[in-house]
Amino acid sequence: MKKSSSESRLVISEVMMPSQANVAGNIHGGEIMKLMDSTAYAAARRYARSNVVTARVDELEFHLPIFIGDLVICTGQVVYAGKSSMEVAVTVDVEDLECETRKRALSAFFTMVSLDKKSRPNTVPELLLDTEEEKTAFEEGKRRYEARKVKKHQST
Amino acid sequence: MKKSSSESRLVISEVMMPSQANVAGNIHGGEIMKLMDSTAYAAARRYARSNVVTARVDELEFHLPIFIGDLVICTGQVVYAGKSSMEVAVTVDVEDLECETRKRALSAFFTMVSLDKKSRPNTVPELLLDTEEEKTAFEEGKRRYEARKVKKHQST
Amino acid sequence: MKKSSSESRLVISEVMMPSQANVAGNIHGGEIMKLMDSTAYAAARRYARSNVVTARVDELEFHLPIFIGDLVICTGQVVYAGKSSMEVAVTVDVEDLECETRKRALSAFFTMVSLDKKSRPNTVPELLLDTEEEKTAFEEGKRRYEARKVKKHQST
Amino acid sequence: MKKSSSESRLVISEVMMPSQANVAGNIHGGEIMKLMDSTAYAAARRYARSNVVTARVDELEFHLPIFIGDLVICTGQVVYAGKSSMEVAVTVDVEDLECETRKRALSAFFTMVSLDKKSRPNTVPELLLDTEEEKTAFEEGKRRYEARKVKKHQST
Amino acid sequence: MKKSSSESRLVISEVMMPSQANVAGNIHGGEIMKLMDSTAYAAARRYARSNVVTARVDELEFHLPIFIGDLVICTGQVVYAGKSSMEVAVTVDVEDLECETRKRALSAFFTMVSLDKKSRPNTVPELLLDTEEEKTAFEEGKRRYEARKVKKHQST
Amino acid sequence: MKKSSSESRLVISEVMMPSQANVAGNIHGGEIMKLMDSTAYAAARRYARSNVVTARVDELEFHLPIFIGDLVICTGQVVYAGKSSMEVAVTVDVEDLECETRKRALSAFFTMVSLDKKSRPNTVPELLLDTEEEKTAFEEGKRRYEARKVKKHQST
Repeated sequence: MKKSSSESRLVISEVMMPSQANVAGNIHGGEIMKLMDSTAYAAARRYARSNVVTARVDELEFHLPIFIGDLVICTGQVVYAGKSSMEVAVTVDVEDLECETRKRALSAFFTMVSLDKKSRPNTVPELLLDTEEEKTAFEEGKRRYEARKVKKHQST
Repeated sequence: MKKSSSESRLVISEVMMPSQANVAGNIHGGEIMKLMDSTAYAAARRYARSNVVTARVDELEFHLPIFIGDLVICTGQVVYAGKSSMEVAVTVDVEDLECETRKRALSAFFTMVSLDKKSRPNTVPELLLDTEEEKTAFEEGKRRYEARKVKKHQST
Repeated sequence: MKKSSSESRLVISEVMMPSQANVAGNIHGGEIMKLMDSTAYAAARRYARSNVVTARVDELEFHLPIFIGDLVICTGQVVYAGKSSMEVAVTVDVEDLECETRKRALSAFFTMVSLDKKSRPNTVPELLLDTEEEKTAFEEGKRRYEARKVKKHQST
Repeated sequence: MKKSSSESRLVISEVMMPSQANVAGNIHGGEIMKLMDSTAYAAARRYARSNVVTARVDELEFHLPIFIGDLVICTGQVVYAGKSSMEVAVTVDVEDLECETRKRALSAFFTMVSLDKKSRPNTVPELLLDTEEEKTAFEEGKRRYEARKVKKHQST
Repeated sequence: MKKSSSESRLVISEVMMPSQANVAGNIHGGEIMKLMDSTAYAAARRYARSNVVTARVDELEFHLPIFIGDLVICTGQVVYAGKSSMEVAVTVDVEDLECETRKRALSAFFTMVSLDKKSRPNTVPELLLDTEEEKTAFEEGKRRYEARKVKKHQST
Repeated sequence: MKKSSSESRLVISEVMMPSQANVAGNIHGGEIMKLMDSTAYAAARRYARSNVVTARVDELEFHLPIFIGDLVICTGQVVYAGKSSMEVAVTVDVEDLECETRKRALSAFFTMVSLDKKSRPNTVPELLLDTEEEKTAFEEGKRRYEARKVKKHQST
């Protein structure tokens, strides 16, 4: 079975509340990471049509602080698929609802693993790449995946 | 200033977690109502570009139960705008991430009021109606608004 | 079996905490709606002595804002009972603990459905009406119930 | 100024949700303690008409486990008042909504201190004792208060 | 089987967030009590290697207020062990992360009961006392335990 | 000013509750990421004695699933310090309280930035390296820091 990358695209969005604030009164980075993890989970689960778990997070970068009242739009898309693992690119945009702007606040790569009913790795669909952008993202995801494999091998 | 109804359209979405379950193990209706209120708040705030408060909720109807793990997609759109109040139609769709279906689970009308910095009612933009559907929705919203005004008058 | 309306009367009360605040720093309307839903759930469950689910919410009206530190008193009472559905009138009063006043902040009607162990509609006790006030409330509940049935019929 | 003990009586009640469960699946003792603390806070604040803080908790006893879905009724009443401190007797009853029973699940004594705007101890009203029961409770509260003072003195 | 008191020593620690604040903006006493209960639960469960429940809390004393951003360090240690019940001494220290100080904020005694798989009282290991301090703590725990037994006997 | 790496070492620990579960019933990865972020925040704040924010997370790896009831021990230690940024190595160990084992469940590197009262980057103390292990960790941290700088430069 094959699936296109764009088909896996999924959005989780929320208005930030005071209960999500950190000590300084902005939104707790951990709350956003939790939201990103849910997004990666949902995108991978929809792609694999199975239970999935988070295996790794790489290059999670905070570009902007997020404030109470901001609309947070978290987008996940499967950009690389191996045998049973998928890499989901997750981006977070914020919109101050009282003015026009929407800005990129965070980005990261989540490696998710598909599991069958007995919690064993499960084969995922092959990734159909429609655009040049998707092909580049796939190659980069593959490179990251293989670099990590080499590193693991070296450390043993 | 004028604004189109479609421009106010806004989506809040979340994956339902065990912490949102009710006594029977499904998702607590109150959790969904809270999500709908946040959606109405965000759509009205973006439309009015001001602080807004919820004044009423009407015809909130549960069509389907919602389960742990479901992706909940909550959509709000301003369908009627008076002087300082707006009616936001809020719909809730659910998607079981492991199969294709997306289904309508709830719908309701939220009346929101725009407030200025001193918490006084604030004039909102006039609503531009592009499609026949939007015109019908506006007429229905206006009818509901006026029926409530008559009722209030009678009860005093 | 018959049960009096007053017997179903049930109170849920809470002191409002900062974690329940909305973007403006007052109490999130959705938090109060969640509390009202719990109250309707508890009143209907005690009346029907079975599991119950929320089917509709009508005429939910916010009369006053609620603040951090307020004592919120949420009262539910079955005012109309059909075959397997009940209408619960829910009112919310607030008390600023440092002064005497107690004021009506919200009111709404919740339609709840009794379910048996297999999630099928379940017959509920007949409603005993003791006072004139209860009889009036029952008639109004019945009128709302029938108006909705007619409307549903028309829209199909 | 004088106030009667019964006037300070205040009830906090809640339906227990799965998010309040402990590892074993019953309700987390800490959740109930938090509810009792809120009740003592509200009763003392209403009695003193000032901000109050918890100074001590004594003889907090769990008589029965509490389950998801139970209605928890937490009652606080000022039983002893000194210069700026009050003792609030807090009891917790539970009701399984699908049967008639209401049972005592916990009880405790909370010592609360009234504070003025600058966080200094604040004089509280004198306690009016109407019934024999209230007089006995006051004497017991006084004895506990003085026993603690003696103990503190000895340990310095 | 025997176990040393120091072996049961266990620490739960957390940075206090705005969502844990009370009405006055400090940390809610109930939140700290919940943390202490979790600590007593974990220390007793590790000591007994079984499920445990809270039976009593005594002499819970607040020495200092706790603020948003404070690191709270909650330490539990079994100081007395009877047949199936254990007394856990719980202390709470706070550290303002921007300066050196660490101060005692609360202390209490939690009586925990070990339960077997069928929720019946379960025998716990005998307590090995290594230091003079531990022997004193044991004697005091025993005295409290027996005083409560006498009191219970008298009240029946 | 200089500070040793071991001095910055800080532990956050918690017993995992049902409210932190994900859809599959294990602990939500996002909850653990939130805990790790709090640990990095606290370790960096104590090291810098200033407000700090999360700038990046790298190589966050899940080695083991975490279950309800597990004691989670999250340790943070500053391993590299630049001018105003610090790298905090965060590890997560889990202990099943009913048996002896403690196992490594996650690890990651958090880059934190020290901010002064006006939210401008703030100089942090120099890192004193006492052991060979700390020196190696510092060199690796420096290499990661510089690799990211090069990468950023290339992408502009």
